[in-house]
Amino acid sequence: MPLSRRLAAELLGTFWLVFGGCGSAVLAAAFPGLGIGFAGVSLAFGLTVLTMAFAIGHISGCHLNPAVSVGLCVAGRFPVRDLLPYVGAQLVGAVLGAAVLWFIASGHPGFDAVASGFASNGYGDRSPGHFSMAAAFVCEGVMTAFFLFVILGATDARGAGPFAPIAIGLCLTLIHLVSIPVTNTSVNPARSTAPALFAGPAALDQLWLFWTAPLAGAIVAGLIYPLVANTWSGRARTGMGRA
Amino acid sequence: MPLSRRLAAELLGTFWLVFGGCGSAVLAAAFPGLGIGFAGVSLAFGLTVLTMAFAIGHISGCHLNPAVSVGLCVAGRFPVRDLLPYVGAQLVGAVLGAAVLWFIASGHPGFDAVASGFASNGYGDRSPGHFSMAAAFVCEGVMTAFFLFVILGATDARGAGPFAPIAIGLCLTLIHLVSIPVTNTSVNPARSTAPALFAGPAALDQLWLFWTAPLAGAIVAGLIYPLVANTWSGRARTGMGRA
Amino acid sequence: MPLSRRLAAELLGTFWLVFGGCGSAVLAAAFPGLGIGFAGVSLAFGLTVLTMAFAIGHISGCHLNPAVSVGLCVAGRFPVRDLLPYVGAQLVGAVLGAAVLWFIASGHPGFDAVASGFASNGYGDRSPGHFSMAAAFVCEGVMTAFFLFVILGATDARGAGPFAPIAIGLCLTLIHLVSIPVTNTSVNPARSTAPALFAGPAALDQLWLFWTAPLAGAIVAGLIYPLVANTWSGRARTGMGRA
Amino acid sequence: MPLSRRLAAELLGTFWLVFGGCGSAVLAAAFPGLGIGFAGVSLAFGLTVLTMAFAIGHISGCHLNPAVSVGLCVAGRFPVRDLLPYVGAQLVGAVLGAAVLWFIASGHPGFDAVASGFASNGYGDRSPGHFSMAAAFVCEGVMTAFFLFVILGATDARGAGPFAPIAIGLCLTLIHLVSIPVTNTSVNPARSTAPALFAGPAALDQLWLFWTAPLAGAIVAGLIYPLVANTWSGRARTGMGRA
Repeated sequence: MPLSRRLAAELLGTFWLVFGGCGSAVLAAAFPGLGIGFAGVSLAFGLTVLTMAFAIGHISGCHLNPAVSVGLCVAGRFPVRDLLPYVGAQLVGAVLGAAVLWFIASGHPGFDAVASGFASNGYGDRSPGHFSMAAAFVCEGVMTAFFLFVILGATDARGAGPFAPIAIGLCLTLIHLVSIPVTNTSVNPARSTAPALFAGPAALDQLWLFWTAPLAGAIVAGLIYPLVANTWSGRARTGMGRA
Repeated sequence: MPLSRRLAAELLGTFWLVFGGCGSAVLAAAFPGLGIGFAGVSLAFGLTVLTMAFAIGHISGCHLNPAVSVGLCVAGRFPVRDLLPYVGAQLVGAVLGAAVLWFIASGHPGFDAVASGFASNGYGDRSPGHFSMAAAFVCEGVMTAFFLFVILGATDARGAGPFAPIAIGLCLTLIHLVSIPVTNTSVNPARSTAPALFAGPAALDQLWLFWTAPLAGAIVAGLIYPLVANTWSGRARTGMGRA
Repeated sequence: MPLSRRLAAELLGTFWLVFGGCGSAVLAAAFPGLGIGFAGVSLAFGLTVLTMAFAIGHISGCHLNPAVSVGLCVAGRFPVRDLLPYVGAQLVGAVLGAAVLWFIASGHPGFDAVASGFASNGYGDRSPGHFSMAAAFVCEGVMTAFFLFVILGATDARGAGPFAPIAIGLCLTLIHLVSIPVTNTSVNPARSTAPALFAGPAALDQLWLFWTAPLAGAIVAGLIYPLVANTWSGRARTGMGRA
Repeated sequence: MPLSRRLAAELLGTFWLVFGGCGSAVLAAAFPGLGIGFAGVSLAFGLTVLTMAFAIGHISGCHLNPAVSVGLCVAGRFPVRDLLPYVGAQLVGAVLGAAVLWFIASGHPGFDAVASGFASNGYGDRSPGHFSMAAAFVCEGVMTAFFLFVILGATDARGAGPFAPIAIGLCLTLIHLVSIPVTNTSVNPARSTAPALFAGPAALDQLWLFWTAPLAGAIVAGLIYPLVANTWSGRARTGMGRA
């Protein structure tokens, strides 16, 4: 599959992740009396990955997340030369998804992206539950590490096979079920960057944490999984798995 | 499989989509203290498609939706000569499903289909969150485009294989998790038409949007997916996939 | 597999259906502030069938429901000579499940099986939403018919294959998402009988409906599915499918 | 696969079970207005097992639970010589998971592990719904017995095959949907031990029940399943299934 088609798939997939995941938070989470709450938002984020992994996994591998691409690189599953193009496509898709969401949300009387936060991530006074910066960093790092560990295990040649999109999508749901109160849940620098562009300077000031912590966690998992599973030798290493 | 059996399957499947999906909204969403809310309605709509795709996918392809049939036509996956019969069967099934739901709901003291809206779709003052007509049109169009994109990818010969009903059903759940507050979520002209017949003239006045926006989105996806996946040439094109 | 082992599996499976499904309703649905509501009960009932279908499907077919056994008989998928033993085992398992649930619930201060209803089914003043007897009968009949239709389609030789437990379990979840407010949802005479024995004479007085309506719906589906799918001739008919 | 790698996988997997499952309860269950409630916690616990079973099932079998290891031993599916190392790794992983959760939760203003209970299990005045010790013991024992029964059936050579992680993970979700009000749900001595170390002496005083009842249930299921399924003879017995 040529790189151009793979980048188009990553762009559309990351659009869907931000539009669907952040969209559920912005439009539906707090609807009076009938809102979907954090549990519904958790399900929505996970289903964006599950649906796209089934739809474009055969085209681009369905990373939709710079931390996933980096972690797969570290584990020897993804070529370094494709890393920057993938991250670029993910960022463009994420920003376009947030822009269309902003247009729809603006059709609601009284919408204010800055005051509402627009599903951006944050810590301290911008954390939904006012968790500290240290708690936020550890939470994002550990969550992303286990996300990558599950991705690497499920896409291992001996792993989940065609079930990988279910394992990976529902892992993202699980991560949100736990950590929305801490940081609004990122584990994905592209997902963090896009809404921050619409949510004002306070959101942008905290964006550094949602690049550094997920990438650190992904790198750790990319180093640990092959040690545990012993995939550095043997055929599993060559399995450029769906992710 | 002769056309008559396929149309019978489409009729029964679309009955189930409207009866189950709209039924969850009308009967259970707002039950005091224990109601299922928008999240439960989202799950119900998705499960109508998931269950029927496993039950009749081998008979009719399980479209249950004029926008799905049109999008598959545009992508070269469904013969144009079957389009009108399929849409007709979908509409008949949808209306029968709404009629049986109306009978059951009428057994509830104080039921009023017009005042309650009877799960019809709407924009402006008929949108659950009072979203504008422009926001509603964009939301329905984008959602249907991604719905078709997921359907086309999952039923691609290299795609989700027997997992397609899970990918497609849960995609409809995701779409509802985001967009019920905007339009009560259609992405399906047959699903919109049936309850509108019971919900009074104001619902019928807005029905045009829930035909034009989903069909426009479906056509766009039917054009874009083959470009991204390069299925215009090669064996994937001939795969008249379960949908 | 000898009949004795199949009956043991049906007994244990129907114990699980009543203990888990009714247990979620009795113990967890209305817990102050954190309760699982009708959506959680819907998921619980579906998961009892999903988990048991994966665990004992290869032993007994995992019917767990007299209406399922009858519908499979009518469609030619289950031998008539095994019908009464299966129904007997299902009833014994259901009553034992309700008895253990009653013991646990009695460990809660102030528990009263009769006043709380103990998850029994009902119509009129015993319907959660006070739906009429006619609405309850139509709802139970239509729901059971579609439940059997999905079972027959998913276990068809051309159907869902190893995905059948997912299709069938989540179909039961869908049915509950819609119809708990109408009748507390039966579609299963064994599930209705067991808690009624603990819920007092008013529950027993209404039990007739939760035998007649599900069985009527199951018989209709057992006649219609083979007509739609044309399975009366051909190899599908001989497929004594997992159900 | 050498024992050291299998123990590393069990340690990481049980970390994930406690960090994700107890984390959802501590951090997200009771968030004002948007919290995930008992239903969300139930989904989180189940998804920790589902995701890890897909990620490390091929490494260690993914027990994550001393009761699971014991039940598999009794049924002849797991060698006794590996039992103590597995339980040790599970306990270490559980305690580490609780410790990281404690660090994150401590970043929340006003967090108090003892006063909040820190997701520990309990009965009597430490039961969420104030259920008696006898009710708690029976509930934990019956739930663990059916959990093992589903595990043994799903991993039987004739069972769920690659679907086993779905069956087993969602079985744990079902168990939580029913029994959180009774004991906060254990069915896993490692999951009970770890938060109790942070929740004060009253939690530790009740810990005995959450070892004895799950282990008793697991042993019963390990004896009954082979009788029902007749796996003591034949090839199924040699299937050291993923669990």
